[in-house]
Amino acid sequence: MQVYLDNGAGKAVDNRVIMVIQNAHDDIYGNPASFHSKGFEALKALNDSRQTIANFINAESSEIVFTSGATESNNLGIIGAVKRNRKKGNKIVISAVEHISVINITKSLIKEGFTVEICPVDEYGVIKLDELDKLVDEKTVLVSIMTANGEIGSIQPIKESVEITKKSDALFHTDATAAMGQLKLDVKNSNIDLMTLSSNDLYGPRGIGALYVKKGIRVSPQIIGGGQENGLRSGTENIPNIMGMAKAAEIADIEMETESQRLIGLRDSLITNILEAIPESFLNGHPTNRLPNNANIRFSYIEGEALIISLDSEGIQVSSGSACAAKTLEPSHTLIACGLKHEEAHGSLVFTLGKNNNRQQMDYVVEKLPGIVKRLRAMSPLTPEELR
Amino acid sequence: MQVYLDNGAGKAVDNRVIMVIQNAHDDIYGNPASFHSKGFEALKALNDSRQTIANFINAESSEIVFTSGATESNNLGIIGAVKRNRKKGNKIVISAVEHISVINITKSLIKEGFTVEICPVDEYGVIKLDELDKLVDEKTVLVSIMTANGEIGSIQPIKESVEITKKSDALFHTDATAAMGQLKLDVKNSNIDLMTLSSNDLYGPRGIGALYVKKGIRVSPQIIGGGQENGLRSGTENIPNIMGMAKAAEIADIEMETESQRLIGLRDSLITNILEAIPESFLNGHPTNRLPNNANIRFSYIEGEALIISLDSEGIQVSSGSACAAKTLEPSHTLIACGLKHEEAHGSLVFTLGKNNNRQQMDYVVEKLPGIVKRLRAMSPLTPEELR
Repeated sequence: MQVYLDNGAGKAVDNRVIMVIQNAHDDIYGNPASFHSKGFEALKALNDSRQTIANFINAESSEIVFTSGATESNNLGIIGAVKRNRKKGNKIVISAVEHISVINITKSLIKEGFTVEICPVDEYGVIKLDELDKLVDEKTVLVSIMTANGEIGSIQPIKESVEITKKSDALFHTDATAAMGQLKLDVKNSNIDLMTLSSNDLYGPRGIGALYVKKGIRVSPQIIGGGQENGLRSGTENIPNIMGMAKAAEIADIEMETESQRLIGLRDSLITNILEAIPESFLNGHPTNRLPNNANIRFSYIEGEALIISLDSEGIQVSSGSACAAKTLEPSHTLIACGLKHEEAHGSLVFTLGKNNNRQQMDYVVEKLPGIVKRLRAMSPLTPEELR
Repeated sequence: MQVYLDNGAGKAVDNRVIMVIQNAHDDIYGNPASFHSKGFEALKALNDSRQTIANFINAESSEIVFTSGATESNNLGIIGAVKRNRKKGNKIVISAVEHISVINITKSLIKEGFTVEICPVDEYGVIKLDELDKLVDEKTVLVSIMTANGEIGSIQPIKESVEITKKSDALFHTDATAAMGQLKLDVKNSNIDLMTLSSNDLYGPRGIGALYVKKGIRVSPQIIGGGQENGLRSGTENIPNIMGMAKAAEIADIEMETESQRLIGLRDSLITNILEAIPESFLNGHPTNRLPNNANIRFSYIEGEALIISLDSEGIQVSSGSACAAKTLEPSHTLIACGLKHEEAHGSLVFTLGKNNNRQQMDYVVEKLPGIVKRLRAMSPLTPEELR
């Protein structure tokens, strides 16, 4: 059996989306800047897609900037915003569990004179609002807190964070990548200034994303050229993938609620059955307030890498943390921020479910995993006698 | 009849490429950074594609950085190089006929303390090597000269320009976008340091491109995050489009020579027949040393925009300049640099041919165009009596 449970790292594109992209490659090949019917056709497709993405997060069409993906959106939303609004102050506040791109982007700004403050999180990876309140001050130009964490699934108190941010008139950016297609996003209701949007997390194509920029908020472009995307992001627009992202948002709008409920059912049975079947296994992240598709479980006395290899040989693909940070070999900064010890972080597995998963697959994982854990524990000198 | 002759602004993706992309969306969905079979599969696809692109320009696989397209490659190749090598000097030299992205990128560097010198071109849009020689000095950090101009088709003397650049130990960047799939590119033979590569110009997908960075040359990343692409370009790799670009390069490698000969035949008959049929029409750009797919013709006493609309209503799509600069309403800076007057530049039409064009279509253009020109001239008070 094939059981792909690493949907947080990469998702198979929805077939209905693939059809849209395929037709666009073949047919909508005009340049939206061209002054003829093939150009107008491309421009219409671009505008329609922009409106669809805007609707998806309750924004205006003019507030959507298409980018090449979530990482670029984070670059534009953070670097573009703090450089353009530097007069306000040079302090940036992020949470301790941000995606590696947000961490590295803000680190890169330190040598340009910015200071970066890290807001701590509780044991579930949820930011401490009282600490945030202490960190944000009149010198703060931007606060960036992710909507939800793709690794441990924890959902952040965005509305409350925005309220704290606004007391100091700072800008609020949220990386909504991991939440895409799982949580209802509403930029107006939550009063967000900047939001990073991903396409592949919606079962749309890769290499495309967007940044929501609230009307009136100024950001400096990070890619310079012909002035596309209202001057904020140059380069000929990737119309097929933009149309694909829009189609994916359209589908998510209709199917998200039902699908999220289905995933919660699968996820909860997976968690319950693993914790029951395997001694000294523990859930990481918040027990209930978590993304529908996420289960993060740690197993004492073993390494995540060994687990991944063993599971892969049984046809099961999982992760030991964020794929985007996989090359560092460091323990997950997210789990460390939650207070876990290095060895606990290293012994953690991330299961991210998706559309293509079903109950039989969950049963298969629960059937295979205990034996693998037992075998690996038997090989470790640290394992106590009763677990061998 | 439908005759799309704006292939420089956007090309229909080759069907064989579309098949590759479609399969990848469906199947190669793992993240190349993931430590399991679906990740390894994606990593292999990425490495294989990188090797194909490297072969295409006679480079090493490790010298290829995938980006979101030619504009981003120009940003990384120019901004990344001059910032990283600032110690060498603060002078940048570009040609007067560069793509708008190169112009705007270098303009943006002026406020960061760089100076930009513009190398003039002759009446055909070919850079003056003696002027280049005068401009490049020990303070010069980078010279950027396009391989060929997509608007007037003129091919630049790259090898000679590199030789001049190397006398002052400066870096040499070339934007090869318009030359892709039309001219044989060989970075080793020409001793280029940095080369911008486009995918759509090869009938590959949009939203993907690459930058060649010669071994040993240092550039600063412009998009920061998880450290993909050897730290030079973060963001999860767009594997389907990367595979599509590689497939397009593979096809071009085989078919380019024959196809270029075919296009030269079509182009030359188009030019000859238009110049013959329409009085006071003139070829812009070099008469022979030009891109196989490019014809740029100016017509006295009329505006390009009016011509484009009239031709479009007959099913013929052409351009009045670079689509990327279409929004400026300024006359083409390329034609002005060639010494044309504003009204001459405004009366120019760009025909860029492609795979899908054939002889009947050329005949159709030559059948329709003279009547349109005559009608538009009749409406202009500037037109002399004998042309009415």
